[in-house]
Parts: sequence; structure tokens; C-alpha cells
Amino acid sequence: MHFEIICRDKEVAARRGRFRTSHGVVETPVFMPVGTQGTVKSLTPQELEELGARIILGNTYHLYLRPGAERIARLGGLHRFMGWRGSILTDSGGFQVFSLAKIRTIDEEGVAFQSHIDGSRHVITPEKSVQIQEALGSDIAMCFDECTPYPVTYEYAKASMERTVRWARRCLEAHRREDQALFGIVQGGTFLDLRRACLEELAALDLPGYAIGSLSVGEPKEEMLAVLEEVTPALPAGKPRYLMGVGTPEDLVEGVRCGVDMFDCVMPTRNARNGMLFTSWGSIQIKNARYADDPRPVEEGCGCTTCRNFSRAYLRHLFMARELLAYRLNTIHNLHYYLGLMAEMRESLEKGAFSQWRRRFYARRQETRQED
Amino acid sequence: MHFEIICRDKEVAARRGRFRTSHGVVETPVFMPVGTQGTVKSLTPQELEELGARIILGNTYHLYLRPGAERIARLGGLHRFMGWRGSILTDSGGFQVFSLAKIRTIDEEGVAFQSHIDGSRHVITPEKSVQIQEALGSDIAMCFDECTPYPVTYEYAKASMERTVRWARRCLEAHRREDQALFGIVQGGTFLDLRRACLEELAALDLPGYAIGSLSVGEPKEEMLAVLEEVTPALPAGKPRYLMGVGTPEDLVEGVRCGVDMFDCVMPTRNARNGMLFTSWGSIQIKNARYADDPRPVEEGCGCTTCRNFSRAYLRHLFMARELLAYRLNTIHNLHYYLGLMAEMRESLEKGAFSQWRRRFYARRQETRQED
Ligand SMILES: [Zn+2]
Ligand SMILES: [Zn+2]
Repeated sequence: MHFEIICRDKEVAARRGRFRTSHGVVETPVFMPVGTQGTVKSLTPQELEELGARIILGNTYHLYLRPGAERIARLGGLHRFMGWRGSILTDSGGFQVFSLAKIRTIDEEGVAFQSHIDGSRHVITPEKSVQIQEALGSDIAMCFDECTPYPVTYEYAKASMERTVRWARRCLEAHRREDQALFGIVQGGTFLDLRRACLEELAALDLPGYAIGSLSVGEPKEEMLAVLEEVTPALPAGKPRYLMGVGTPEDLVEGVRCGVDMFDCVMPTRNARNGMLFTSWGSIQIKNARYADDPRPVEEGCGCTTCRNFSRAYLRHLFMARELLAYRLNTIHNLHYYLGLMAEMRESLEKGAFSQWRRRFYARRQETRQED
Repeated sequence: MHFEIICRDKEVAARRGRFRTSHGVVETPVFMPVGTQGTVKSLTPQELEELGARIILGNTYHLYLRPGAERIARLGGLHRFMGWRGSILTDSGGFQVFSLAKIRTIDEEGVAFQSHIDGSRHVITPEKSVQIQEALGSDIAMCFDECTPYPVTYEYAKASMERTVRWARRCLEAHRREDQALFGIVQGGTFLDLRRACLEELAALDLPGYAIGSLSVGEPKEEMLAVLEEVTPALPAGKPRYLMGVGTPEDLVEGVRCGVDMFDCVMPTRNARNGMLFTSWGSIQIKNARYADDPRPVEEGCGCTTCRNFSRAYLRHLFMARELLAYRLNTIHNLHYYLGLMAEMRESLEKGAFSQWRRRFYARRQETRQED
């Protein structure tokens, strides 16, 4: 995978880059909408493209269980199966095995678990995770890892991190597809020495990209920031850096400031389905009675198809009536907000004005928050 | 409301017509997708337009309870509220009061009932129904009526029909909006003499259109057809004829044969959400395991965006995973089928070839039904 850095900020570690996969060019810093089960919930691939998404995330655990990776391979791979022409990154399955599956046992070989859907028994090893991701045909695959919870003991974090490193070596060994990049994942919880040790071991594998895992798992913001500020600049400078599963708009801004290139998070899509809408001046709960007669769009000046065509009053009605269209229109607005935020950051970096942009971002997000 | 008949079939009572409302021209025979709560479930108005829908149905009972007709009026009327530029027909609220509401008492004045949403108490009279529909601002309003069940005694059907006629007179008396047409509804169950009597009384009111109510409520197909064949040709010839809440593709074809101009039914949209897809050779249940590896579209040659972009295998996966996109893609296909069926019938009428078309329609619907 080719990655180039177009420019670097003069004050902070932020950088403006670009990578290319066999499914197109991706401008970074980039946000990847989450398409858990082969669909970004409620949206068509065409809508995602119109929203400006160029890369989305697919979940290996979910797709492996249903409809099955071999089936997707027979049907031409995940891109073709779901009709998505852009790039796809698949996670390793590790995160969901630990958060969703039942009765899991972890050992050196891998993880044994029962499906959350039908209780069937499965084993995922590093080799199996790579094999599934190769069958799915994603453009970027992730090494099989354990995402440790917060809090976790130093001893567990250390043992888990060391296993994750050994698993990364096995993933690299098993990996065959040349049209797929395999990224490593830096673990180690909130223990900076463990993070540094992990990073050093993984850097030696010369993988085409590196991710930071196990953040935004319940730790205080300051601890997350401390890890970000320590680990990100220490990652190989010429390779894309991916902060997994993070986060709020503010988290994205801080991630970019620390030099992160890629993000994914269910927040814009999941919160949309729960009626929470992001705006540049904070967020609103659309079910709030104050919106019942409000003819304004969610955010004045927003160019998304939801704001251009529908009022808060209508969105509130759809949400209260549990209409399917509610989830879709809310998702469109939130993804437009997230993808627009990344576009603004990329533009400010090109202009050498990221820090000014960042100050204005915080001022606007906080100033009129009383609207909700 | 201006209605013109463009041509009549030489063999049967079918006719090809056109009417105009302040929201555009509608070519008949026409199918009206049902937008119960101010949305055709899962679709945007833009998608409806692309599907070729020119008129949709809104439910007075639902919109009156939530978000409220006065609120919709303040927000600029139902068209503006939901962002729909085409025409809208609203039902009278009668059908849902009888099928959904709790503890209803009916007397000469109207119907008292409790909301199915929150148990609140309401009364809808003919005058109130007209007032609600005027507040919603639909292009076509329906007289408040009682939809009798099947079976029903002759005595009840007679008393109910006579009340529906008296209510129609009160609706006409109360009706003010000149940009809204008020249609009458012929009742009388499966008793042809009651239907004839009702029709005669309502025709005397010189309403701009007439509907046939209380069909497809559980009666045998032959009884429905007997009513259709008796009542439809006896309705005022120069005015649009609307068969309410009917039905299957076959029902639409028989309705057109008998001279019906307008139809509505939840079948294409509701069945879509239940995974049942219509095709010219029958219907399929997308959850069927045989589709798990099927790379073909729902129907070869179908021009809908679902069939042009997605396989049966993908649709089955979305449906099994209860993904929101499933309901939407299925709805698009089914509405495309229904609206396409009407377009085919209109074209065959223009060519003077309706009966040939009808024979071919039945041959195709039956020949390869074993596919499912
Ligand atoms: Zn918006
Ligand atoms: Zn289709």
C-alpha cells in the first residue's frame, strides 16, 4: 500500500496524507464509517459515496459468523457482495470475540468462543483471522489481537501485549494476498512502557501501517490523551497510523493533532439511531419536545440531504413514531458531520492553519451548547 | 379536480385516464403507495419520485394522533412536512379507528375511541374528519365512513351503509377547501342491493370521485369480484373510481378490468418488510436458504435500483441479520413491481391490448411459480 505525506503541521504532530488501495485513493486524516455486517446501517453504498466516504470498516467476527467468509468469497468478495466500490478495512475479529461472544477461552493458540447468534462453537487463531480477512478481500487487514479492558492489571496487560506481538508475527507469516495491506496493532493498556515495548517489537516487522488499540474502552480522557501523545509520534513516521474505535469529534481532533491518520467509530451511526445528532455547536437529542414545532434543519447551513430537505419537527416525528426513515436521515446527517469535520481538518492542514482551526472548533462546539 | 378519460377498452370496462391536482398530473389506472405516518416506510420522497409514484396515501387517524393535524398545518401542510412534491390522498380515519383504536363507541354523531398509542380519548365526527384532512392539506380527502367487517349481518351492513351516506352529506356540508377534492365511499358489504342503494344516494351528491370500501376484508375472492363487477361500472362514468385497500397484483388487474382507476394497499411495502418479494412469475421469500449463495437479482431484467445493484444472496443476508437496509431495498423492489404493473396496464390500454396483456400476465405469474 502506497502512503505519502503531503504536508506536516509546523506546530503539532498532525499531518496531511494520502494512500492508495486497489479500490481508490484515500485522503488522510480520514474517518471510516462502520459497516459491521456488510452494510453501514440504513445506507446504500451510493449514499456513502455521496457523503464523501472513501473507505469503510467491516467486522470480521460478524461476517465470519453470518453470512460466512467463504460464502462472501464465492460471491466475489466483500466489495462486490455489498456493492461498495471504495476501500474496505476489516478488523481482526478480536474486539468482538471479547465483547460479544459467549464463553471464550484464550490461550497461546487463539480464542475459542460461542457465537452470540446461535451458540455454535468456533476457534479463531491469528492464521484463521488472516484467512477470513483474505477471503473477505478487504484492502486493509488487521493483525489478530486482544483488546484489553480498562482497568487491567499491569501483569495482564503485559502478558496480553506480548501475546499480541507473537500473534502479529504469526499473522504476517500467514498473510498471502498482495492486494491487501496487513496492519499491526499496538497494545499495552494505559502503561506507557508496555506501549513502547509493543511498538518497538511491531515496528521491527516493517508492516505497512500501525494501529493503536484498546483506547476509548472506559479510561479517563487524560489517560487516553497521554497514551496518544506518547505512542503516536513514536510510530513509524512514513506509515499510516490508525486510532481504533475512537471517538467523539473532540477525540478525532486530538488524534489528528497527535499525528493520527485514520479513525473509525460507531458513534456517528449508532448515536444517529438513538436520536443524537452532532452539530458544530454541540449535539441535540431530536426527541426533545422543543423540536416538535421547529421548522429549522438540524444545523443551519449544513449541506447534507437531511438538512436540505427536512425539518427538526419532521425528524422528531419520525423518531417518536419509530419510523425506519428516522434512522436513515439521522445517520446521513451525523456521517456528513464526521466526514465534513475530517475534510475541514485536511483543508486546515493544507493551509498550515490547523491550530487556528482547532481553537475555532472548540470555541464553536462550546459556545452555544445551551441550545440542547 | 379535473379528470379525463383518454381511452376505453373495447372488450372490458377498463379505462385509461388522467387527473390533475395542484400537485401535478396523475396517470390512471394508478397505484398509491401507503405513507401511513407521513412517510412511505424506509423511503425518501426522492426515491418515491424516482420509482414513478405521483400520488401517495396518508392516514388521517395516525397523523391526527401523532404529530397532530394542527401541528402539520402550522408546519405548512403534509406535503411540505414530509417533503413530498406529488399528490396526496388522505383516508377518512374511519378504517383505522375501527381496526386499531381501543374501546370505540359509534353513534349517529361519530366515533369515540381511545388512542392505540397512549390511551387518550378522542371523538371523530364527519365534520372533524374533514377538518383534519383540510388541515393536512391533502389533494383528495375521503368522506368519513364505517368499513364493515366480513362477515356482517344484512341488518348491520344496511344500518351502517345508511349512516355512512348521512355522514357523507355532513362531510360535503363541512368541506371548504377548493384545492381539495372530497370523494364518497360506497359501502354495503357483499350485499349487492345495499351497494346499489348506497351508490345511488352518493351519486346524487355529485362528488368529484367515488371509492369502493370494505373489500379485501376477509371475504372470498369470488364475492369481492362479484361486488367489483356489479358496483364499478355503475359508478359515475366520468369520475375517478378508487378501490380502497386492495390488493394483490391479481386484484389490481381485475380491478382495472372492471373499470377501477385508483388503488392503494400496504401489501407491497408491508410484505417487503416481511421479506416477501413480488415478481412477474410469482413471489419469493428472501429468507429461504436457497438464496444464500444466489448471485442473481430478485428478478432478472428488473430495472429497480435493488435489482441493478444487489444479489438475492446479499438481500437474504441483510434480512437474516435484520439490517435496516433490508427493509428499504425490499420496499424499493416491491413498489417498482407494483408501479411497473400499473404502467404496463396503462400502456396496454393505450394500445387497445389490455385483454392480451392480462392473459400474458396470468400465464407468467403462474408458469414458473415452483421457483419458490
Ligand atoms: Zn445535516
Ligand atoms: Zn427489482
